[in-house]
Amino acid sequence: MICSVNFTSSTIEKAVEQLSRFPGIGKKTALRMTLFLLKDKPEHVEMLAGALVDLKTKVKFCATCGNITEAELCSICTSVNRNKKLICVVKDFQDIISIENTGQFSGVYHVLGGVIAPMEGVGPDDLAISELLERIKNEGVEELVFALSANMEGDTTAFYIARKVEGLNLKMSAIARGIAVGGELEYADEITLGRSILNRVPYALKS
Amino acid sequence: MICSVNFTSSTIEKAVEQLSRFPGIGKKTALRMTLFLLKDKPEHVEMLAGALVDLKTKVKFCATCGNITEAELCSICTSVNRNKKLICVVKDFQDIISIENTGQFSGVYHVLGGVIAPMEGVGPDDLAISELLERIKNEGVEELVFALSANMEGDTTAFYIARKVEGLNLKMSAIARGIAVGGELEYADEITLGRSILNRVPYALKS
Repeated sequence: MICSVNFTSSTIEKAVEQLSRFPGIGKKTALRMTLFLLKDKPEHVEMLAGALVDLKTKVKFCATCGNITEAELCSICTSVNRNKKLICVVKDFQDIISIENTGQFSGVYHVLGGVIAPMEGVGPDDLAISELLERIKNEGVEELVFALSANMEGDTTAFYIARKVEGLNLKMSAIARGIAVGGELEYADEITLGRSILNRVPYALKS
Repeated sequence: MICSVNFTSSTIEKAVEQLSRFPGIGKKTALRMTLFLLKDKPEHVEMLAGALVDLKTKVKFCATCGNITEAELCSICTSVNRNKKLICVVKDFQDIISIENTGQFSGVYHVLGGVIAPMEGVGPDDLAISELLERIKNEGVEELVFALSANMEGDTTAFYIARKVEGLNLKMSAIARGIAVGGELEYADEITLGRSILNRVPYALKS
């Protein structure tokens, strides 16, 4: 609505159009952002624009795992503190950020770049699965952790990879599904609750 | 939380920091925007960055009214279809966009650049009030419409200007305050409802 009228400036119109391409940013928010920039210092706007362009010129993907990096290999793959024999398989590099923020994983990662989704035309060959198999064979990997979405596509992808590495004597695991920490039982959906009963863990009194 | 850990890339960190300077954009949204750009085409990101820098280089403020423009004067001030003797006084150029979108105003504008707010150290000399008085004297203005916020600062500012133009035989009006169109009486606050009773308008059967 607010954008149906011309802004007396095509430059503003262009900025609004560009900003509203972001997911979750509508025309109204884009206009508010544009007006904020109009009042901002020129050097600040240039810093912002520079930071965005730098994203495309400086950020690359790790040749080993597919994580974002500014060098040939990412800081996780080059770290001496990470267990290279333990690979966590994720869909996207965003997932690495999430898992790293937990501080609970000391292995390395492998980014598939998607999951098998026949309905969307994504097959195994579109993903970095052959690269993963290569790593498993060459680097003496001992365990795979599947950290994929708890849906059909995620399950299919894990199953496909598991079949491919059959006979390699590889330990495999998937991240636990269950009630969120702090979550109330009555608000959990039945499938999650069912899975968390099936996957119950031993309970012991701490001595 | 999600930003407490390093991103394995200072470029991404910088982009997130820059994007989260926008009002209403937190670190999480900024990260989502950054990851969107990482997957975006390089030429698209350059278009975005260019559009933002253009805001500061191309957009100027109209020498007459303070509206945004890419020329010396804005398209409203230079239009032959606008009544130059009717000036609508607004706080910010954003307000012009809102009023223009209604299509109900055929006069011109004057942007004050703020309202009198002693608590924030904004006095009359910080606003474009002397420029407004100049216009009133030089351009034979006949009517002022105050379209300022319905609060203490807006009222003070209108009062200050009204006192300054006393004796100039100028017609003055303020935009109506009242129940929003489509609004239910029971949800209106008492002050708004009281004002809308005081400022009731003649009601006539259409014949």
